[in-house]
Amino acid sequence: MARKFNFYAGPSTLPLPVLEELQAELVDYKGMGLSLVETSHRSKEYDEVHNGAISKVKSLLGLPDNYKVMFIQGGATMQFSMIPMNLLGPGKTSNFINSGAWAKKAIADAKIYGDVEVLYDGKDTNYTTLPDPSSVKTTPSAEYLHITSNETIGGIQWKSFPKTEAPLIADMSSDIMSRPLPVEDFGMIYAGAQKNLGPSGVTLVIMRDDLIAKANQNLGAYLKYATHADSDSLYNTPPVFSIYALGKVLTWIESQGGLAGIEKKNREKAQVVYNAIEAAGGFYKSPVDSAVRSDMNIVFTLADSQLDKEFLAGTAELGMLGLKGHRSVGGFRASLYNAMPLEGAKALAQYMADFAKKHG
Amino acid sequence: MARKFNFYAGPSTLPLPVLEELQAELVDYKGMGLSLVETSHRSKEYDEVHNGAISKVKSLLGLPDNYKVMFIQGGATMQFSMIPMNLLGPGKTSNFINSGAWAKKAIADAKIYGDVEVLYDGKDTNYTTLPDPSSVKTTPSAEYLHITSNETIGGIQWKSFPKTEAPLIADMSSDIMSRPLPVEDFGMIYAGAQKNLGPSGVTLVIMRDDLIAKANQNLGAYLKYATHADSDSLYNTPPVFSIYALGKVLTWIESQGGLAGIEKKNREKAQVVYNAIEAAGGFYKSPVDSAVRSDMNIVFTLADSQLDKEFLAGTAELGMLGLKGHRSVGGFRASLYNAMPLEGAKALAQYMADFAKKHG
Repeated sequence: MARKFNFYAGPSTLPLPVLEELQAELVDYKGMGLSLVETSHRSKEYDEVHNGAISKVKSLLGLPDNYKVMFIQGGATMQFSMIPMNLLGPGKTSNFINSGAWAKKAIADAKIYGDVEVLYDGKDTNYTTLPDPSSVKTTPSAEYLHITSNETIGGIQWKSFPKTEAPLIADMSSDIMSRPLPVEDFGMIYAGAQKNLGPSGVTLVIMRDDLIAKANQNLGAYLKYATHADSDSLYNTPPVFSIYALGKVLTWIESQGGLAGIEKKNREKAQVVYNAIEAAGGFYKSPVDSAVRSDMNIVFTLADSQLDKEFLAGTAELGMLGLKGHRSVGGFRASLYNAMPLEGAKALAQYMADFAKKHG
Repeated sequence: MARKFNFYAGPSTLPLPVLEELQAELVDYKGMGLSLVETSHRSKEYDEVHNGAISKVKSLLGLPDNYKVMFIQGGATMQFSMIPMNLLGPGKTSNFINSGAWAKKAIADAKIYGDVEVLYDGKDTNYTTLPDPSSVKTTPSAEYLHITSNETIGGIQWKSFPKTEAPLIADMSSDIMSRPLPVEDFGMIYAGAQKNLGPSGVTLVIMRDDLIAKANQNLGAYLKYATHADSDSLYNTPPVFSIYALGKVLTWIESQGGLAGIEKKNREKAQVVYNAIEAAGGFYKSPVDSAVRSDMNIVFTLADSQLDKEFLAGTAELGMLGLKGHRSVGGFRASLYNAMPLEGAKALAQYMADFAKKHG
């Protein structure tokens, strides 16, 4: 097989050793005579996989004991509902930073369950920058402040985080486990798995005990954080394959030097592509504020958009997939999640240089 | 590999050819140079898989055009919340048949969002039987009647269904696609995939258009049926692996003669095990009403429970897994879902006969 360089924004590239292990074990899991995906979620074999994944989340992030790790289905989109259902309600207020497409979806859902005060709206700059973290102050009545650590579509990323009076909640779907984190500064962190953690189908939710305890209990069982926290996410059948694969991805992250090691690699890959944009002297444009440009999703356009089609066709010929920009912003997007090898970033940069030279 | 006979109640046995295909394709999907689980859910390759699965659900069930097929995360447990959130509300009433453990969970969640009137409660018979379908009449104000087509824990199954004034909603998690269905008699059918349809991580939801249209719109995006119906379940990232595997299981069901073919096989397997219970002259006991005994989950006890441990150890030695009864009822349970081969049922029946002879 000629493995492609996969720049999809999500579901996105996975470490090849993880895929190979999943493949080897798929029909017969460790000599059990059946697949892990056919095994009861109450079996000791699955228990080991499930609790192993929870332990790895804790150790990689250095989570204090007063945080719970949960695996919930429905993606970040489901969290956009669960958070306000659990923590807001009539007359209760939340604070939000509107940093772009994903923040907007979270805001829209929160408004159904309570009040929303937007502390910063990136609208005037077309969502190309973020506020200075030290300038962010929550309002006295706020139950929480919600931020989006990385905007997958806009290509901007918080480089450090506000220290706030109200609990800080972050949607980290597109940069979870890509760098070390000051976890104690957060009341809750959540992330759909399908960018940095594994295949789609599971959402990692990390929540401080006091928030779980104060949450609304008058909800259906699946919608209460307490249900998942109290059962170690085994209240009902979990998404076995997704959690099993996530555990293997976490083991792979450990092998890369943990979060500090992976951050170094991610910085290097992003630098290679941003350098290619800058080195071409205006042939490519990055719309975002360089102080907050994302290491995960590099958004760029061609100065001459008439060349877009040819540019994209050339990437496909060289085995680079998924570079078309999101339909809402156009242009191009290179997603360089944890599992993208440096060679992929270099291949793209080389192509960009060659293409600019040919047409420049 | 010596493949085991896997009697787990869920996640449960899958057709071996499906597992083998998933394995073969896992690292490189049809020469794409990447796995399908790494592929954008907006790619043409995934689109084909996704819409192919929807089409197969429609054709296997012979669904009329006024029903939508949706793939939602969170299991049947999530539907226990979504149904009343969408279709009930303060002052609105639902009807339920309380047939056992799963019905109770659905009732508990519905009570949070509206009124519940239980038309039949199996409590007096310890949930070992069901009402005559023709006796079931919904109340004039009922928004719907909810039933559980097969109680996985209790081992009872509706053999035909009530024809009701109010829309009939059925949790079919443990017998979906195991037999032909009069789908027009239902307003909604839902089922977690992990028994008859594939690995865990996705719930099949089939809903009549008028129910989707009348549902509560004042809910977060993920919690509205309309969100999933209007986007063909691509509003956000779907659980790719689970849907991909489900599609392959549906193809396998087609190869077994569709629902009529699979029903014949399921009846035969169940008969083999029920016969083994009866043939041993009181050595084994089935607690359930024989008129509604389940073809999917055969619950039985030993007359002498002191032999339980030895019985179970003997099954393990012969490569039969997952026969321990649910912790809430004890004894034994043989789950004979679609993918259990007849040989598995026969091996169990033979063992039961041998064991009874040895100890009888």
